[in-house]
Amino acid sequence: MQICESIKAIKASVSDARARELKIGLVPTMGCFHEGHLSLMRKAVQECDYVVVSLFINPTQFGPEEDFNVYPKSFERDAALAEDIGVNALFFPPVEEMYPPGYQTYVEVENITGILCGRSRPGHFRGVTTVVAKLFNIVQPDRAYFGQKDAQQVAVIKQMVKDLNMDIKIITGKIIRENGGLAMSSRNTYLNPAERNAATVLYRSLKGAEESIAGGERDPAKLREQLLIKINSEPLADVDYVEILSMPELQTIAHLQGKILIAVAVWFGKARLIDNIIMEV
Amino acid sequence: MQICESIKAIKASVSDARARELKIGLVPTMGCFHEGHLSLMRKAVQECDYVVVSLFINPTQFGPEEDFNVYPKSFERDAALAEDIGVNALFFPPVEEMYPPGYQTYVEVENITGILCGRSRPGHFRGVTTVVAKLFNIVQPDRAYFGQKDAQQVAVIKQMVKDLNMDIKIITGKIIRENGGLAMSSRNTYLNPAERNAATVLYRSLKGAEESIAGGERDPAKLREQLLIKINSEPLADVDYVEILSMPELQTIAHLQGKILIAVAVWFGKARLIDNIIMEV
Repeated sequence: MQICESIKAIKASVSDARARELKIGLVPTMGCFHEGHLSLMRKAVQECDYVVVSLFINPTQFGPEEDFNVYPKSFERDAALAEDIGVNALFFPPVEEMYPPGYQTYVEVENITGILCGRSRPGHFRGVTTVVAKLFNIVQPDRAYFGQKDAQQVAVIKQMVKDLNMDIKIITGKIIRENGGLAMSSRNTYLNPAERNAATVLYRSLKGAEESIAGGERDPAKLREQLLIKINSEPLADVDYVEILSMPELQTIAHLQGKILIAVAVWFGKARLIDNIIMEV
Repeated sequence: MQICESIKAIKASVSDARARELKIGLVPTMGCFHEGHLSLMRKAVQECDYVVVSLFINPTQFGPEEDFNVYPKSFERDAALAEDIGVNALFFPPVEEMYPPGYQTYVEVENITGILCGRSRPGHFRGVTTVVAKLFNIVQPDRAYFGQKDAQQVAVIKQMVKDLNMDIKIITGKIIRENGGLAMSSRNTYLNPAERNAATVLYRSLKGAEESIAGGERDPAKLREQLLIKINSEPLADVDYVEILSMPELQTIAHLQGKILIAVAVWFGKARLIDNIIMEV
């Protein structure tokens, strides 16, 4: 596996692969790999001929009060894990390689970033779409892989790709969960044992909502109320949002029908965790 | 020459050329071709193997009070002129092909769009960079051609290409002038004969500034004052801005040295005309 710290090096590496007409896959990450990342890499290795994983903790997607400075890092371990899976190149640029002095260009998806995580984290998705657009231009992949845990991120990136006519297929990997149902996240490392245990309420609540729908519930307001009661029954939980929206438009709905997203964001101590289920009603 | 009205058609056309390893050139235009456009097309035909000209009056780069609805159109004539020069494909999409319902993604270059035309036309460059990013993704040219008359536009697009790591070389074509020095512009069609005559003051003033510098003038404030006096001596002129900036940073300077841009924007009746000279001091 090649490790490239400069844009020039990763471009040369991919350009070789492209000249050999290989199908190129990109898995953008912020490192600290868990099974969620690894499952995306395995999928990419299976579907593509040349797989690039980017590992870049992107400052522009963190708010000024957020956890950029303490975001967990484990480069040596990450590199070994990616190599084991068969990743061909790891792109690991320093911040100034991606945002040199005088940097001033941003890509912004507007409407669907004003809700859910976009409302709680102003500027977050602008940072995400900007860095992803840059990575797409640098690597020029045929396919790019994102986890479904960040459901809104997937929707925002698909909208960007469509609106800006990018020639890239966006592939999503399902949410990978620990025993007990907690969705894997690099931010789970912030949890103490009691918080980690409490955080399993998210998946239990989402499964409860799924059962209510299976039992005939079609009123999103009632479903949301059930979810809130269940999550708030856990004293360590501090709800940021609980939303039920249409997919992929992310619009509020008066009646549960068609493809829907049930998404939650909840603080447990220092960790703001997100989880969701997508289902066909 | 192929005429493509859909993104799918132009992509197919370019993809054929790319498969034959042809060097692809793009000349983005809003139509109503004059010698400025034609000189860019000739340059592109000379330097590239497959030349696409886009003809799209882009609504997102016009302000609500601007001339989008009356912007001059001459499609049949334009198509014939492009074909004569040897352009391979003309991309001529309707607005809803470029901005379908639900469109919501914008590319924005920040700092250098807050001055000159960016200050007089808020949102203008955001519309330009967005549509140019789209055209770049659709056509994926090796080279793209822009006229130096829109000096700030060239600087903004170069900044976008650099910041977003786009793999495209930006080529600029020099300003083409009528007899009398008036820079060619589609908006010259708005001028009545008296205004057209008055508008030649722009080039005369710029040449005057050049002579002052040749004569030893190094104070931008004094030079600007000379320019303003000369332009305002023309009763039909209504100055929007007169600026002297460093190139390519577009910063104000206290002393004339190095590469500089002298740029003017002046109203004559309904036409807001721009002109500039770039020189090494």
